Amino acid sequence: MINIALSQDLPLRIKRIRTAMAEESADAILLNIGVNLFYTTGSFYSGYFYLPIDGEPLYFLTRTAEIGHETISIRKPELIPDELKKRNIAMPKKILLEADELTYNEYTRLAALFPDASYGNATQFMRRIRMVKTDYEIAQTRISARKHADVYAEIKYCYEPNMTDLMLQKAIETRMRHYGSLGIFRTFGRMDSFMGTVLTGDNAGTPSPYDFSLGGGGLDSSFPLGCDGTLLAPGMAALIDMAGNFTAYQTDMSRTFSVGELPEIAYLGHETSKKIDQMILSEAKPGVSCAELYNKAFRMVEEVNLTPYFMGDKLQAKFIGHGIGIQINELPVLTPRSKDLLQQGMIFAVEPKFVFPEIGGVGIENSFLVTEKGVEKLTIFEEDIIDFTK
Amino acid sequence: MINIALSQDLPLRIKRIRTAMAEESADAILLNIGVNLFYTTGSFYSGYFYLPIDGEPLYFLTRTAEIGHETISIRKPELIPDELKKRNIAMPKKILLEADELTYNEYTRLAALFPDASYGNATQFMRRIRMVKTDYEIAQTRISARKHADVYAEIKYCYEPNMTDLMLQKAIETRMRHYGSLGIFRTFGRMDSFMGTVLTGDNAGTPSPYDFSLGGGGLDSSFPLGCDGTLLAPGMAALIDMAGNFTAYQTDMSRTFSVGELPEIAYLGHETSKKIDQMILSEAKPGVSCAELYNKAFRMVEEVNLTPYFMGDKLQAKFIGHGIGIQINELPVLTPRSKDLLQQGMIFAVEPKFVFPEIGGVGIENSFLVTEKGVEKLTIFEEDIIDFTK
Repeated sequence: MINIALSQDLPLRIKRIRTAMAEESADAILLNIGVNLFYTTGSFYSGYFYLPIDGEPLYFLTRTAEIGHETISIRKPELIPDELKKRNIAMPKKILLEADELTYNEYTRLAALFPDASYGNATQFMRRIRMVKTDYEIAQTRISARKHADVYAEIKYCYEPNMTDLMLQKAIETRMRHYGSLGIFRTFGRMDSFMGTVLTGDNAGTPSPYDFSLGGGGLDSSFPLGCDGTLLAPGMAALIDMAGNFTAYQTDMSRTFSVGELPEIAYLGHETSKKIDQMILSEAKPGVSCAELYNKAFRMVEEVNLTPYFMGDKLQAKFIGHGIGIQINELPVLTPRSKDLLQQGMIFAVEPKFVFPEIGGVGIENSFLVTEKGVEKLTIFEEDIIDFTK
Repeated sequence: MINIALSQDLPLRIKRIRTAMAEESADAILLNIGVNLFYTTGSFYSGYFYLPIDGEPLYFLTRTAEIGHETISIRKPELIPDELKKRNIAMPKKILLEADELTYNEYTRLAALFPDASYGNATQFMRRIRMVKTDYEIAQTRISARKHADVYAEIKYCYEPNMTDLMLQKAIETRMRHYGSLGIFRTFGRMDSFMGTVLTGDNAGTPSPYDFSLGGGGLDSSFPLGCDGTLLAPGMAALIDMAGNFTAYQTDMSRTFSVGELPEIAYLGHETSKKIDQMILSEAKPGVSCAELYNKAFRMVEEVNLTPYFMGDKLQAKFIGHGIGIQINELPVLTPRSKDLLQQGMIFAVEPKFVFPEIGGVGIENSFLVTEKGVEKLTIFEEDIIDFTK
């Protein structure tokens, strides 16, 4: 079922997609990947969304579902061309297919339906469309942000002396579910994940095979990410980066907790992270370059001589922020060589983090909405290091 | 780090792969997908595994990692052919690539490294290799099965009067994490998932877009699977199907709970499920056809006139079981037209389930290991309907 706000939002998305299609001289797009079906229809379903440059969109279902639109049941995608002909829809001359998400066999099967067409990449195309959020998407993100902060306010009460990082994470996970976390944590590409990470002690610096800012070794070689059973001992920091997945639109937020006092260098790192966050708040606005924001942040780290600890100590991530939405790693990405400029309606997370051997991870991460003249911080919660023992 | 048992197991897997390569006249296989890297090396990492038909396997890393083998660092896969030449390894004539898992763009990029080769499908190839488990994999599965049963023994204590299915699920999830659940729940194909499902009342029959036996509507249109906030009221059944993900090797187990007495038809369905489970225990053994097991089970359902409720009421799944391992939906699949015969070392789950309107889902699911002369049930726990209120 689709609510009124969403039913008014969907036509705007279709219009954006068509404007971008015209720029690429594409006369059709065929989508099959869940997040793209959800973006265009408001539902996850098993099937295809076909949008010609003119006329009505077509909703093909390969499995029964209620998606709030008139649908066409097909057993297999090979029936799509006949359904187009029945409706006097011309075969496309250039069609966009999800080349970075469909498997090789899926893609070649779909491409064969349009043997006379040329093909464009719907994956990168849709990622750029989805990068700028609609009002409805922004409202959904705000719901996640508020609940995200509510859960973070309870983290302090999750701590007990002599607990492991896993027991702390488990306690936070339960509170997340209590506040309505959907559980699932969607990523782009082949990144395994589970609700977020709690990184403490040396584990904060353990390289992971995934593109998260920091990794952690994990509990088992089959899932090298996140907490590894480290005991939370006095003098350790716990960097907590749990997903704000309370609606389809995720927020991203990290905060640092400590077991008693930390060594001085940890506070220097944390204050630098907060200063970078302040710099983003005052300088980010439409037209500002993502690369410039990265480079400014990096210079702030150089000034305090903390580059060996920035974004990891053993393996260092080369970004400080990323778009968020239905997936946690949307566009734009704040890297040294990004060509993206901020645009009104983008939502992105900035996560300047430091890893100090034996101590753990420190820093903050917030989610920002790009407004007409600046940015608005969506994830509002205490930013100093919170001492579990006080 | 690799333990001794695993280090003795890996060469057996390589040997199996090579025997199957010879049968397909392939002289190399190149793997990039996490579960296949894990199968061949015992680690998840960012990189490639290259196995020539003769000589040593090569472990290419695109990101630092400790994987317990001598590795070759490469920035990009285009460097692989040069590394082969340096080692006097002949270019392959026929190479297997993961055509059902790599994206179109990833596949075409890798295929271009071997322009003179022909290609075979490493996805289906590896799924058939992984279908028959080694002794080490069986031992890992047994660990999951034991913990899985331990958690199920606590489910009764998770219940409180007037709770929703989500609150029950949350309580079970916490106990799973306490027993060491890795959280992550790997599937083959594009199936979203989160730890498992609790299905009660009409929600048990709500169609889902995913290939699970039963779906459930979920909490949000962005994730149409599992509990939907239904209140557990007297006369309802809760069919609990949480993943046994305590090692990399998952077990699958479902049990039925009730709030007080259920209508008579629910007990008839449940007893039929138990009888099908008994039939599997007595008839399944190496050489038996998976289709025959499905068809026997279906006839048992027909005999009690329960086919309208079998494997769903609105949308009915056309299988009663599936292989399990690193992913929850491995081979073989127990469908009406499966061509697979059981082999010693296979591990599969059988889940004859029924959905009754207003009541919920009933039935049991167990995981079985195919032994020399029969099958062994791995998931040992009470199989009758457990009344939460008694």
